[in-house]
Amino acid sequence: MTRVAVVGGGQLARMLAPAATAMGVTLRVLIESGRASAALAAHETVVGLPGDADAVRQLLADPRPDVLTWEHEHIPSTVFDLAAEWRVPTRPGREALLFARDKIAMRERLGHMGLPMPAWRAVETEDDVEAFLSVHGSVGVLKRARGGYDGKGVRIVRSPAQADDWLSAAAAGGPALLIEDRVAYTRELAIQVARRPSGEIRAWPLVESVQRDGVCAEVIAPAPGLSPTVQAEAESIARRIADTVDVTGVLAVELFEVGGRLLVNELAMRPHNCGHWSIEGSVTSQFEQHLRAVLDWPLGDTAALAPVTVMANVLGGSRTVLESAWPHVIDPGAKVHLYGKGVRPGRKVGHVTVMGQQVDDVRGRAAQTAAVVRDGGQS
Amino acid sequence: MTRVAVVGGGQLARMLAPAATAMGVTLRVLIESGRASAALAAHETVVGLPGDADAVRQLLADPRPDVLTWEHEHIPSTVFDLAAEWRVPTRPGREALLFARDKIAMRERLGHMGLPMPAWRAVETEDDVEAFLSVHGSVGVLKRARGGYDGKGVRIVRSPAQADDWLSAAAAGGPALLIEDRVAYTRELAIQVARRPSGEIRAWPLVESVQRDGVCAEVIAPAPGLSPTVQAEAESIARRIADTVDVTGVLAVELFEVGGRLLVNELAMRPHNCGHWSIEGSVTSQFEQHLRAVLDWPLGDTAALAPVTVMANVLGGSRTVLESAWPHVIDPGAKVHLYGKGVRPGRKVGHVTVMGQQVDDVRGRAAQTAAVVRDGGQS
Repeated sequence: MTRVAVVGGGQLARMLAPAATAMGVTLRVLIESGRASAALAAHETVVGLPGDADAVRQLLADPRPDVLTWEHEHIPSTVFDLAAEWRVPTRPGREALLFARDKIAMRERLGHMGLPMPAWRAVETEDDVEAFLSVHGSVGVLKRARGGYDGKGVRIVRSPAQADDWLSAAAAGGPALLIEDRVAYTRELAIQVARRPSGEIRAWPLVESVQRDGVCAEVIAPAPGLSPTVQAEAESIARRIADTVDVTGVLAVELFEVGGRLLVNELAMRPHNCGHWSIEGSVTSQFEQHLRAVLDWPLGDTAALAPVTVMANVLGGSRTVLESAWPHVIDPGAKVHLYGKGVRPGRKVGHVTVMGQQVDDVRGRAAQTAAVVRDGGQS
Repeated sequence: MTRVAVVGGGQLARMLAPAATAMGVTLRVLIESGRASAALAAHETVVGLPGDADAVRQLLADPRPDVLTWEHEHIPSTVFDLAAEWRVPTRPGREALLFARDKIAMRERLGHMGLPMPAWRAVETEDDVEAFLSVHGSVGVLKRARGGYDGKGVRIVRSPAQADDWLSAAAAGGPALLIEDRVAYTRELAIQVARRPSGEIRAWPLVESVQRDGVCAEVIAPAPGLSPTVQAEAESIARRIADTVDVTGVLAVELFEVGGRLLVNELAMRPHNCGHWSIEGSVTSQFEQHLRAVLDWPLGDTAALAPVTVMANVLGGSRTVLESAWPHVIDPGAKVHLYGKGVRPGRKVGHVTVMGQQVDDVRGRAAQTAAVVRDGGQS
């Protein structure tokens, strides 16, 4: 019996389970609590935090998993040490994961690779911030190097004073900081590739990611109006990163499109929100592909099945019973995914996917059903 | 939390789980043993047989399921009695299920509806068999009214003597018998519809079912070279059965195509092998649709996503470790489903689905991957 262990019990681990079931793979998940999103669907669960060595030992115990993987990048080094001790391969590995976890390490590495990205520098003092702002139009994007997601750990600053609290926290041992040029981009794009240890890589079509308030609201696959050159350039960037950093599993590269150019924004080495469209919209979903990649099995076809697929996130509203919306999901082509998470305003609690022919039509349908689901059918 | 209880732990219950996970529905399954196919994937399990009242009570216990459904038709009446006592609706219901479980009741009902089917009669004695054979070309298909599947409980007879053992068993309280005309059909087709309690019905495209040794080997969706008339006629037959018998959930109608005519062969009131292609090949899979139907939620679109989708069953070979085949699955478009069942020769232990443009090409690819999987990569 093939068995994959996963650290992290959120919706990404939850959505690995259907793919694992189909493939005959047992999925064992380290979940934070019995109420974690993945608790419903995981085939085997261990309750505990990644920093809890006993829990990690249970995750690795007999029948021993063939491989250990992650649904987030916040993995303490003890997990890698224990996995090495139990001789369970970790994919992606410790070194690769560092570049997804630490934005300063990531920026440095991308710089060495000569890949295009926004101007940036690590900052430790107000003077560092001042120096950067003075040559970049008096505005910058201050980021914590670790721990951010969905707009958290990111702040627009126009003066060094606006960075004060984070600078103090960093000096006191908190997350290190970097500042980046605030790029006047045309739109945000994302490309995903999967890479297996033996080196095979497959890329999905480049997608457009529509953000609202720093959170991904919609993904359009493929990105409308793409030139083949841009798809090829994005794919080339993602392949270079995957090969150079020795990524195994799925890699998402978030990009800014500026005129006809691409700049690398962020990396994620795991299934990612920008790839949820692939569950229905591609021959092989990112979840199936991630499992195939970390198991070093041949990768699946990543072609899109429809001219356009749109994924709209369901961002938590004020109501708590999303399921009560189901009787109101009257669009027969809308595929609704609920994550079984408690609802908080703005929290990703589900998503909706619609496939079709015309971008505007498909976007409208996805947004409409997402609104119905968010409001439990009361909108 | 919406919760669906299922009687039966085979691959049909297993394949309900991914759809349930996506929809945020908790799936509680009555499995025969911890090694049942559905054990891996079910969200909650109760171990026991359908005839075990204590097990059925656990299946119905708090938190109480919203509905009770089946993955096979062999449901003792005690289950319906207990469900009524616990006020859990059963879908499909007792009366509807009878027509899928008992081939004599089914033939009688179809006769009352005036639907086309092979000539048939119930038989209790050698004289009954003789009388039928004498007017139907001296050959008939003897069937046990209950309990058959995959060619079991079916026998070609050319003389009353060949029916002797089953006649004796029937007289001694075993399954009742019927005999049917051995139809010289062009091919076998199947149509599936889903119907919800409020009456909404949706039909999938008519498919061709290719049988070998009495077992379904391949399904081609849609059936090649169909006239719109035949699709419409099949849909009309299935809709009439679903409405008349008050089917809730998915109904499969297996058909013989004889020249341009259709005859009803068998019924199944549950997800069915002829609909596995829909997991990847249709906007809405039969598994998702069955859950939506029994929950009385709006039904999903049943359109096909590709010009042709072929499902090839993996019928057990001599080897036992199907998973060892995965590294050999080199067709990137082949979707492999393993059921986690022990391998016996001829047993359905998995299936492969391929989507594409040309029937011959897609059939060849599906068959090739099914062979690789069957032989654990050693073919």
